[in-house]
Amino acid sequence: MERVPVLKIGDILLVSIQIDMEDQVALQLQEDLADRIVGTGCHGVIIDISALDIVDSFVGRTLATIASISRVLDAETVVVGMRPAVAITLVELGLSLPGIRTALTVELGMALLARDRQFTLPDDDEDDADEAVVTAS
Amino acid sequence: MERVPVLKIGDILLVSIQIDMEDQVALQLQEDLADRIVGTGCHGVIIDISALDIVDSFVGRTLATIASISRVLDAETVVVGMRPAVAITLVELGLSLPGIRTALTVELGMALLARDRQFTLPDDDEDDADEAVVTAS
Repeated sequence: MERVPVLKIGDILLVSIQIDMEDQVALQLQEDLADRIVGTGCHGVIIDISALDIVDSFVGRTLATIASISRVLDAETVVVGMRPAVAITLVELGLSLPGIRTALTVELGMALLARDRQFTLPDDDEDDADEAVVTAS
Repeated sequence: MERVPVLKIGDILLVSIQIDMEDQVALQLQEDLADRIVGTGCHGVIIDISALDIVDSFVGRTLATIASISRVLDAETVVVGMRPAVAITLVELGLSLPGIRTALTVELGMALLARDRQFTLPDDDEDDADEAVVTAS
């Protein structure tokens, strides 16, 4: 039971971290997630950490690594569900999770990813332009 | 870290079980889920058990209890992500999870819930009927 499941929901992969992030678990998660991004072609990854009481430097580094791997594979990562106490401790420890985007809930994270994707999809605009030309002719 | 998070995605509550289902964890999950169903007005609950290597009679009973509680609160429950080995062991143990609906993935579970909801919403039909009357007069 030492494996964090990766759930596909539409164009997004959802990971809910509930178990202790030991080395092996973190490595396995990175591998599973990279495999699923490539296998599914998803463009968004949401990592829920609402079950975590503590986010130490190792977990912070793991999250940053996952975000970097996802970015290389053309997927954006959003960390959601951080508890207020976790945020306070993180900053007190001098960890501000650079390069990691956050949202309060899974739904807000999905909205963030959807919005981003809309801004970075030039194909849609091109389609509109084509249609406009067709209509004009 | 002994609490299973309940994630809201649209009209559905998603629970990914990854930790051992001890008495206290199961009770807490039942309570959290009931609270969230009432608080959010969600009509669907999806329980992902893809992280579980073993589903024993206690876990089976917990899932059945959750499904019953949800039903009383007007929400349908679907268990998703069961491993093949778990299904085989369950049946060998004589546990066939009566009263629990299953789907292979989260997405298929969502589709199942969406379909059911469509069939069991008499309000839509009534609206149509009203409109028909208005049109006829």
